[in-house]
Amino acid sequence: MSHGKHKQYVVGVDLGGTKILSAVFDRNLRVLGREKKNTRPELGVDGVIERVAECVNEALASAAVPHTAIAAVGVGVPGMVNQARGVVRIAPNLDWHDLPLVKLLERQLHLPAALINDVQAGTLGVKHLGSGRKLQNFVCMFIGTGIGGGIVLNSELYRGAGGMSGEIGHMVVVPEGGPKCGCGNRGCLESVASRGAIVRRVVTAIEKGRKSLVWDLCDGDTSRVRSRILAEAYREGDKLVRRIIDDACKYIGIGAANLINVINPQAVILGGGLIEALGKQMLPRIRKSAMAHVIGASPERVKIVDSGLGDDANIIGAALVARAMVETRRR
Amino acid sequence: MSHGKHKQYVVGVDLGGTKILSAVFDRNLRVLGREKKNTRPELGVDGVIERVAECVNEALASAAVPHTAIAAVGVGVPGMVNQARGVVRIAPNLDWHDLPLVKLLERQLHLPAALINDVQAGTLGVKHLGSGRKLQNFVCMFIGTGIGGGIVLNSELYRGAGGMSGEIGHMVVVPEGGPKCGCGNRGCLESVASRGAIVRRVVTAIEKGRKSLVWDLCDGDTSRVRSRILAEAYREGDKLVRRIIDDACKYIGIGAANLINVINPQAVILGGGLIEALGKQMLPRIRKSAMAHVIGASPERVKIVDSGLGDDANIIGAALVARAMVETRRR
Repeated sequence: MSHGKHKQYVVGVDLGGTKILSAVFDRNLRVLGREKKNTRPELGVDGVIERVAECVNEALASAAVPHTAIAAVGVGVPGMVNQARGVVRIAPNLDWHDLPLVKLLERQLHLPAALINDVQAGTLGVKHLGSGRKLQNFVCMFIGTGIGGGIVLNSELYRGAGGMSGEIGHMVVVPEGGPKCGCGNRGCLESVASRGAIVRRVVTAIEKGRKSLVWDLCDGDTSRVRSRILAEAYREGDKLVRRIIDDACKYIGIGAANLINVINPQAVILGGGLIEALGKQMLPRIRKSAMAHVIGASPERVKIVDSGLGDDANIIGAALVARAMVETRRR
Repeated sequence: MSHGKHKQYVVGVDLGGTKILSAVFDRNLRVLGREKKNTRPELGVDGVIERVAECVNEALASAAVPHTAIAAVGVGVPGMVNQARGVVRIAPNLDWHDLPLVKLLERQLHLPAALINDVQAGTLGVKHLGSGRKLQNFVCMFIGTGIGGGIVLNSELYRGAGGMSGEIGHMVVVPEGGPKCGCGNRGCLESVASRGAIVRRVVTAIEKGRKSLVWDLCDGDTSRVRSRILAEAYREGDKLVRRIIDDACKYIGIGAANLINVINPQAVILGGGLIEALGKQMLPRIRKSAMAHVIGASPERVKIVDSGLGDDANIIGAALVARAMVETRRR
């Protein structure tokens, strides 16, 4: 395999609180090889960075691409980042604060690195290769541990006045007596409809004696319940899981309707772990709830679809940021 | 008074379901004269258009500006308009459908006319002369008969994919068992926090026997209750009105928080009849509710302020549209 005179490949990394995904991309953003690892944030900063490096090197090996052919590595992080300075300001799921991640990664990987918020990475991925490819205006809703959103206006990521736009998980959908949210407020969409909230509700019900397939599927260890187990229980017709996820779909639909009424996008595009695992079941329910709350609802008014990228939206966006950095430096 | 060789003045009209406001503006958008009339939509299309013409001519008289000095008239209309074709598509409060208003007005006024949605007019007014003057990104919330919103991004009115952005009155704030909204859905912000909703709640309570100053202030004719009467009762400490308006402030604050979390604007700017009449009382309550629901709330995060223009936001925006039309034609 010839790699030309330029270092022509990039690596995209999706560094989540639970798992690390990495992939090697060619110039056309085709995946040449990939790897997946648990994050294990309990290992601390050095431990996690070592795992990221291993994950990148194993993806290179699986792609049969040498280290010397890589121009840069882009990393999507679940938190607030200062992209220009390469610093993670806050990443609650990793318990990181003001961490100079780019410097630490470059030291470990011997490759130029770039940072981006994971939701912004996913949104870029959807815009470049997913179902937002041909759209100028759309909103992404990523349903995972939390709920994040990305807004594309005039074909560009809209970041807001202070780079804090898209906090759609913190729209209020339960104004009275809603559950406490991780942000400290109450009744946020994330507090009733994220995978985290769904798991908490299911586990609480099981602990109170409710019967559910989830108990068998997790071998009695409820700390292991993730999207995959919820999806299996849902598809098997588990009543508890169905009720709680259908309820979440109602609220996600209300959130989608709010976004449609305010922003009037061409589409609302759903992604994230829970949609990846249960999109086929959840999407019709989300659409139905949204359409009951959109003003002037009609099929032409807006599309509500999945990202078309499965788990890959974030690594694609991270790869795009790596590529953009390389191109800026070459100029 | 010399009017130069160009027709250098424009007229801005705010055509509401209840009243018509008009004003003559000089080149610097200073008001030279103004007039106000009841709309009386029951007179039908011809009757209303005649009243608009009278209102314009009386504003000219009060400004001592001759008809020949007017370059164009801009009209803000409470409904969906096709600006390019000069047609009002739907204006529910006037009961107008597909009305070629520009043609009818030009025939009556013998002046070029231009249309704009009233909320978009108000937003333009706030951007050019109000508290959005020095801001690049903000959201307006107009609280009147209904609740409308305008979004300014990168210093321009953001209209959305289909020109339907800013329907902030139809964000869902009461997800379970909310009141029916004029749009046909339930639990919309407009259905609990508009002046119309507040009046309905107050009148219903009075009809059920609740004591309120409003009964005296409207001389027992509840069809006459408007912002001014609500404001007087509120300031006098009327318990019923205080409870209902404070409740509305809570929901307006939730709506503002949703907009802040999603769009991350520099400011949320409040206007409309109810804010004009009761801003001093309502704004602190709206701010408090919003800040309880904004993620990462801090005084620097966002400003929540009034328009700084009182009732004039819409006529200023309408005048701007008239001026823009004239400038386009001169090129």
